[in-house]
Amino acid sequence: MKIDYKKVVSEILSSREKSGGIDKIYFAACGGSKAELTIANFFLSCESKKVKTWIYTAKEFVLCTPKALDENSIVITLSSSGTTKETVEAAALARKTGAVSIVITGEKDSPLAANGDYVFYDGDEPKYHYSTLSLTIALKFAVELVQQVEGYPHYEEMQNGFAILDDVIGKARDYAQPGALAFAEANKNEPVIHVMASGANYNVAYTTTTCILMECQWIHSNPIHCGEFFHGPFEVTDKEVPFLILVGTGRERAMDERAVKFLNQYGKKLYILDAKEFGVDVLGAEVCEYLSPIVFTGVLSIYSHKLADARNHSVDVRRYMWHVEY
Amino acid sequence: MKIDYKKVVSEILSSREKSGGIDKIYFAACGGSKAELTIANFFLSCESKKVKTWIYTAKEFVLCTPKALDENSIVITLSSSGTTKETVEAAALARKTGAVSIVITGEKDSPLAANGDYVFYDGDEPKYHYSTLSLTIALKFAVELVQQVEGYPHYEEMQNGFAILDDVIGKARDYAQPGALAFAEANKNEPVIHVMASGANYNVAYTTTTCILMECQWIHSNPIHCGEFFHGPFEVTDKEVPFLILVGTGRERAMDERAVKFLNQYGKKLYILDAKEFGVDVLGAEVCEYLSPIVFTGVLSIYSHKLADARNHSVDVRRYMWHVEY
Repeated sequence: MKIDYKKVVSEILSSREKSGGIDKIYFAACGGSKAELTIANFFLSCESKKVKTWIYTAKEFVLCTPKALDENSIVITLSSSGTTKETVEAAALARKTGAVSIVITGEKDSPLAANGDYVFYDGDEPKYHYSTLSLTIALKFAVELVQQVEGYPHYEEMQNGFAILDDVIGKARDYAQPGALAFAEANKNEPVIHVMASGANYNVAYTTTTCILMECQWIHSNPIHCGEFFHGPFEVTDKEVPFLILVGTGRERAMDERAVKFLNQYGKKLYILDAKEFGVDVLGAEVCEYLSPIVFTGVLSIYSHKLADARNHSVDVRRYMWHVEY
Repeated sequence: MKIDYKKVVSEILSSREKSGGIDKIYFAACGGSKAELTIANFFLSCESKKVKTWIYTAKEFVLCTPKALDENSIVITLSSSGTTKETVEAAALARKTGAVSIVITGEKDSPLAANGDYVFYDGDEPKYHYSTLSLTIALKFAVELVQQVEGYPHYEEMQNGFAILDDVIGKARDYAQPGALAFAEANKNEPVIHVMASGANYNVAYTTTTCILMECQWIHSNPIHCGEFFHGPFEVTDKEVPFLILVGTGRERAMDERAVKFLNQYGKKLYILDAKEFGVDVLGAEVCEYLSPIVFTGVLSIYSHKLADARNHSVDVRRYMWHVEY
């Protein structure tokens, strides 16, 4: 059954109408799932005056719980398997404190789902390509929440963007193929590759570092925020260090372009993924900034697989996960 | 003149008494300065029910400004030189939107100071050792703010902690000398060193990666949150990769210890800085969690200098900062 965002948001707001409404939302998950939720968190932090928003790695949310967490809060957790322990604990904590617990998962009969007041099962949703499904669900919910709480001026444009998103991702992936192949060949023996982005896209850099490079390829990496680059990290720049940089289409673009300019001058191994080249603008002038990380996520999936092929190191190989206790 | 936190907080709250009070605080700075402000942000996120808190890299705050920023907000910026462009822009934005602008700086006659409704000049404050001054100022202000807005149950304990902090840092630094020397000798030729922490200490890991390793030594590094470690990054672990890990004394310690246990089993080059060994507990059972990053900052300064000595690579050498336009 498709998620009825309008109905869910309306129900939640009604349920808190007499006790002060919903004024806080906490996102809690781990690793790539946490990064996925960050897009909705970023959208809310920019666009909502009334709903305050934060994101936590799940265990820190459980151990160092914010005192402000209460029944006027929503907690959104995400785990594809529905079994990530820390995330299950976060959802359980949400219910214990009287917050609304929304879980996003690919498994209806999981410990995580058992701790949700609302379970957003991603299996029935439109099949946005390549790991972009759950992050899109979180963003759609956030957009609907702002719309119903205080009105979001670009709501219709955003809905149009969602409607054509899958097509844009598909085209971006076609466009990205040669670049991904060239990147993979050039970097297959590199021990360190840094990844950069800013704004809504920052957490695609985080996922690329954390999941694609460190987890799947055992390549060292730092997800450097373009706005932070010139305050320390840029001193590692030389002709030998590879940087993969995501250039956005929104307000953050100025930060990304400044970093590109510097790296073009003083670096050499610079790989630029420009959202404009990927046709992200088509998604709508006012909303493409928030949708671009979804397109980037689809594109980076190709980079991940091409790199795995070039290195002859499958994306499914692990030395610890699935093999040892920890 | 010493900063009169009580008076400043009282004045600010009075100034907003008729227009809804102070309910939001935004921290905005760059690099190491941003990391310093994170301690106060973490304290507020844990301990305040009424004042919501966020931290931004300054340029993102300026470009992707949260819509919630208004006259019921405080914006705290920090730049030691008072000239960091992005941070000056953030303070100017604060004033433009009617927020209270507090700047922390070492230069009274700087562009940053010119954009502050309140200038916290650190030159007259007690001389907490070694780069810990400004972060302590931000934390002291945050503690006073919570106390006056809603009461902080451990206010007196925190004040006692502040009173003996300098002594604790001094002793911790003495204790850390042999470990710092051993770390420096063992790692002087390493191209990559990862740094880990969690909770209030996370941003000491960020500073260690960003400023000590990447900026000053051109060593690659990723500041890995212990709560995120098992969700991707831990797959890079082997007997060759060095990890420096800060172990806290507070609620976050469970995350740190889990990472230590794993690294002891599957890694080899593990360097542990344990806040308990540094006597951080003395600062007060309920508050040492928030003060420990200040002690770690003092200790890491020794690690920085010993590493510089061992590598014969001064902490003052840069290839870009001070030398080229960017």
